Amino acid sequence: MPRTIDLAVIPGDGIGPEVTAEALKVLRAVLPADIELVETQYPFGATHYLESGEVLSDESLARLKQHEAILFGAVGGDPRDPRLAGGIIERGLLLKLRFALDHYVNLRPATLFPGISSPLAAPGDVDFVVVREGTEGPYVGNGGAMRIGTRHEVANETSVNTAFGVERVVRFAFETAQSRARKRLTFVHKTNVLVHAGGLWQRIVDRVATEYPEVAVDYLHVDAATIFMVTEPSRFDTIVTDNLFGDILTDLAGAISGGIGLAASGNINPDREFPSMFEPVHGSAPDIAGKQLADPTAAILSAALLLQHLGLADEAAKINGAVARDLAGRGEARRGTSETGDAIVAAIGE
Amino acid sequence: MPRTIDLAVIPGDGIGPEVTAEALKVLRAVLPADIELVETQYPFGATHYLESGEVLSDESLARLKQHEAILFGAVGGDPRDPRLAGGIIERGLLLKLRFALDHYVNLRPATLFPGISSPLAAPGDVDFVVVREGTEGPYVGNGGAMRIGTRHEVANETSVNTAFGVERVVRFAFETAQSRARKRLTFVHKTNVLVHAGGLWQRIVDRVATEYPEVAVDYLHVDAATIFMVTEPSRFDTIVTDNLFGDILTDLAGAISGGIGLAASGNINPDREFPSMFEPVHGSAPDIAGKQLADPTAAILSAALLLQHLGLADEAAKINGAVARDLAGRGEARRGTSETGDAIVAAIGE
Ligand SMILES: CC(C)[C@H](C(=O)O)[C@@H](O)C(=O)O
Ligand SMILES: CC(C)[C@H](C(=O)O)[C@@H](O)C(=O)O
Repeated sequence: MPRTIDLAVIPGDGIGPEVTAEALKVLRAVLPADIELVETQYPFGATHYLESGEVLSDESLARLKQHEAILFGAVGGDPRDPRLAGGIIERGLLLKLRFALDHYVNLRPATLFPGISSPLAAPGDVDFVVVREGTEGPYVGNGGAMRIGTRHEVANETSVNTAFGVERVVRFAFETAQSRARKRLTFVHKTNVLVHAGGLWQRIVDRVATEYPEVAVDYLHVDAATIFMVTEPSRFDTIVTDNLFGDILTDLAGAISGGIGLAASGNINPDREFPSMFEPVHGSAPDIAGKQLADPTAAILSAALLLQHLGLADEAAKINGAVARDLAGRGEARRGTSETGDAIVAAIGE
Repeated sequence: MPRTIDLAVIPGDGIGPEVTAEALKVLRAVLPADIELVETQYPFGATHYLESGEVLSDESLARLKQHEAILFGAVGGDPRDPRLAGGIIERGLLLKLRFALDHYVNLRPATLFPGISSPLAAPGDVDFVVVREGTEGPYVGNGGAMRIGTRHEVANETSVNTAFGVERVVRFAFETAQSRARKRLTFVHKTNVLVHAGGLWQRIVDRVATEYPEVAVDYLHVDAATIFMVTEPSRFDTIVTDNLFGDILTDLAGAISGGIGLAASGNINPDREFPSMFEPVHGSAPDIAGKQLADPTAAILSAALLLQHLGLADEAAKINGAVARDLAGRGEARRGTSETGDAIVAAIGE
């Protein structure tokens, strides 16, 4: 029986449409004839907001929920545009989707592919995955300010952490570690300062660990984790951490493994109650948009994560293999965005 | 008229006493005959707590306040000791001092000295200073938890930011940037997510900037800042940021500029209402304690920051120069902690 993948596509702003087009090209090339890819494009992003006033309406959100998965490019306009101040697109669109679609796992692999150079002199074998919590922590929007604009202003931000929310992502991280060769999980937090949130996380990690005797667990303060990220990244296998620490660590992880032009991510609802969403870690880079200068590799690797999530592990592996082969042979040649997409499509057949 | 420096010394735990001894050795060597260094040792730290039950009593705090400045080694015992769980020493001693002595500037220079190798393949000219806020943000201890240990636990941490607290550290950062050759200030935050705290910081940075037309100001999200820290650290001159982001960025900054064995810091009350406190960024490293394996350079550079703060700029420069000369000639030879202190003392005369 032919299968259909009902995909929502949000190309977004800046380089988003360019890299998303290549990810779709690769998806179409890798899927067998009996799997039909049905693509529905949505215009959301800064440009759409400035034109229409809509960031993401309830109706739009309801429509997105009908799809099986979401392919997301990048959103964000000119950072100096006052109409876009206060992260209105980031919070109203990207974070709103992560929260509304209960993407409690933000999965971000970090791999230094052969042929890719790292800013580190001796990176070693970089191959780990960060399991970043996606629906709690300082990202919940539970802040506020008083006496705004006066000498007596007080502005607070509250990180909210629940046993329910922490346990499910910690369990996912243990499953991930268990499935990997090294079976090693590093919990990253700042338990010596953030004692309440840190205590909750630590107790849950300790308790779940008893169910995974094969997984070796250690702990690092977030500041120390950034040191190891540049002195000994090969020590990491699976990292589990909160939303904000995960944001910081995954940009750093992307940088040391060849740049965020290669860093893929999945915003995942493992329970499949809602569609998961796959996006490159990089932003919309308005300065280089429309010039075929962007590297679509991160978007293409994100499409592989999408297939993996949908149970199409063979096709995901084909994309990853093609990307690895292409990266190994890229050398110094400058290629356009769609040329890189074409090269990866060609490498699928090899 | 002979001058006296009335110094409180808290050597602390682990390698703290070893590195502090070398910092004192260098201080004594660099001060001219008409400046008398009066040292009062205090036993605080994990060992003292386990022996006496005292972390830092009100009486001890009152005594510390009488001194002109504090030289601090490192504190913290065995991380797996349950009696030390929950950051009891870090919060009850180190953070308590920073808060009680109103150390609102946590000053952390990052310099890659000639002869020192960085984990980065092409670090360039690394020479910047981080002005980390020291008395606000997520460090205030305004968190709490309910239903602890149950499936319904909720644990919150609140970052508190005030116009008063932000403006004074931002002013210090502009003064710092103004005094430096490149006159460049980078404000680091996460304004697209932490909109209340970020908005307060951003408005104050913008307003104070108008008083420093010579200082070029830019902004980076904290995640992007970690990328630049490994791809182009030479872009930084002065960084101003909050307590938690500053904690993370300065460990990373230490790592890329030769390791936190070289990273100095000052917990400063610029208004001199209370004694300022100078400490290496590194911890107590109990695993190598007592073996003369620790590098005392960070403690010695912290002593130079102490002299600078006390208005003894020439003597501070002498220490910095001696450290630079020693580092340039160190090579691969392994030296003991006190040998390194001796070598730096010897280099003062050169
Ligand atoms: C755009 C921003 C809100 C987002 C985040 O902080 O999560 C981004 O940095 C990311 O990592 O996906
Ligand atoms: C020990 C800890 C509380 C401290 C901090 O987080 O400030 C340390 O990491 C530092 O940077 O001085």
